[in-house]
Amino acid sequence: MRDLNEGNITQAVLSSLANMPEGRLRTIIVKLIQHLHAFAQETGLTEEEWKYGIDFLTETGHKCTETRQEFILLSDTLGLSQLVVAQSHRRPDSATEQTVFGPFHVPGAPEVPPHGADITNGAAGEPCFVFARVSTTGGEPIADALVDVWQADSDGYYDVQFAGWDLENASLRARLRTDDKGTLSVRTVYPRSYPIPTDGTVGLMLEAMHRHPMRPAHIHFMVQKPGFDTLVTHVFSDTDEYLDSDVVFGVRSSCIAQFLRHKAGIAPDGTTVNTAFYTMHCNLVLDTTPTA
Amino acid sequence: MRDLNEGNITQAVLSSLANMPEGRLRTIIVKLIQHLHAFAQETGLTEEEWKYGIDFLTETGHKCTETRQEFILLSDTLGLSQLVVAQSHRRPDSATEQTVFGPFHVPGAPEVPPHGADITNGAAGEPCFVFARVSTTGGEPIADALVDVWQADSDGYYDVQFAGWDLENASLRARLRTDDKGTLSVRTVYPRSYPIPTDGTVGLMLEAMHRHPMRPAHIHFMVQKPGFDTLVTHVFSDTDEYLDSDVVFGVRSSCIAQFLRHKAGIAPDGTTVNTAFYTMHCNLVLDTTPTA
Repeated sequence: MRDLNEGNITQAVLSSLANMPEGRLRTIIVKLIQHLHAFAQETGLTEEEWKYGIDFLTETGHKCTETRQEFILLSDTLGLSQLVVAQSHRRPDSATEQTVFGPFHVPGAPEVPPHGADITNGAAGEPCFVFARVSTTGGEPIADALVDVWQADSDGYYDVQFAGWDLENASLRARLRTDDKGTLSVRTVYPRSYPIPTDGTVGLMLEAMHRHPMRPAHIHFMVQKPGFDTLVTHVFSDTDEYLDSDVVFGVRSSCIAQFLRHKAGIAPDGTTVNTAFYTMHCNLVLDTTPTA
Repeated sequence: MRDLNEGNITQAVLSSLANMPEGRLRTIIVKLIQHLHAFAQETGLTEEEWKYGIDFLTETGHKCTETRQEFILLSDTLGLSQLVVAQSHRRPDSATEQTVFGPFHVPGAPEVPPHGADITNGAAGEPCFVFARVSTTGGEPIADALVDVWQADSDGYYDVQFAGWDLENASLRARLRTDDKGTLSVRTVYPRSYPIPTDGTVGLMLEAMHRHPMRPAHIHFMVQKPGFDTLVTHVFSDTDEYLDSDVVFGVRSSCIAQFLRHKAGIAPDGTTVNTAFYTMHCNLVLDTTPTA
């Protein structure tokens, strides 16, 4: 400890943990130190580059507020979030895969009946009639599953991003319970691809990486039922141009569905729609393995 | 990109850099992604642990102000700062080694003559008479080198940590130029070991690691002379109890000197000192290799 240089400092830092109890936190910190030091050594990180990194992290922290989480955005755009999600929810191929939760879920969204509700509430976009079936990996319907649905409008904005928003005037979000056949249906709007916020450090990083900030169009679902691993996922549109370049790496093959376009006329709920509209059918397949 | 899981996501993120030009930034980002993902995979990082990490970074960012840099403190206490400093200033054994700059240097400190100045200006501590010689690795004196000196008082505080501080009333900091023999001398106070700030996330981390927050007593020096690699270093007291456990891993063998204690009496500058006092002699040896 009196002669620390780039050759022995990693061991010295690890040795400083001599009094730290064994356990999960120690395991994580040891790996963190090893990878942090290996990163600096393998790149030959300079003092100027180190300083840039300090400033980048500081600015990222200062961008975080009650309603903005730039570190999560950083984790998302570096693929870390989806990596953690995937390794935390390993499932059989027959189950729907987990994807990133995102920052726009709100607990306590309005409860609506299993079928027939219109959750548009003034949001911009073409009508879209969503039909979902919740089942086991064996194909058995799961009745009375609690399903959260939420999505952005056709301009890419979630209701919470509008000034003066509160749950009383929620739009494009709701909670439903599946019927005896494990199904639900709801009227919403056709989702569109949209950019993540680019006015912070993550926007600068994406620009330096020559990457676009777009997410492919999707609808969020969270499905909860006692005895099953809670499913947090999206359903993506299979024709979206950004499906192969989602800026947060959230696309998984079991999370893609067709959004079919129809001419104006009689909609599936029996009402007459004066514009073109969409229908989407999807399966949400739960795994029985409970989370740890 | 349509079937991302923990087995293929690292490659997918690297592939997203397809349009990023080759160069230093790309090299660094590729290594960052690889180590970040390997860290999460090797630890089997859970969603709860990931969330804790996000919150820790956010809180660290919110702790940073104009006068407090918690991310630098984090880098220092994980040994990253010293690693970067060491690999950025490789020098022959005969030269004085580089150590961390720290957050307490101030540009434009008061200029004082090469010998005889008292920079105490009311600071707490026992008198200490410092004698330094600046030379080449071959032992030749370096005249007219610009030397910044700064240090904490005997309570562990730098002048900038006191309310209402400005350069007009600086204490324990000065700039001197070496004389024709490459020497300088100054009266200051005997430095003491002190804790780094522990009221932020770094304090929490050290507690979890069962590490103390102490730095061994030291005086900072920065020596600049055209044609030589600028030297940023400390001189540590060879009897300090924390010399083998510096919380920021800054100790290097060529940066340790003796602080000799003397009874009250005639000081080296010819004045009479009514308390015990210290003398310290050190060599500051510059390498000719310019920084890149």
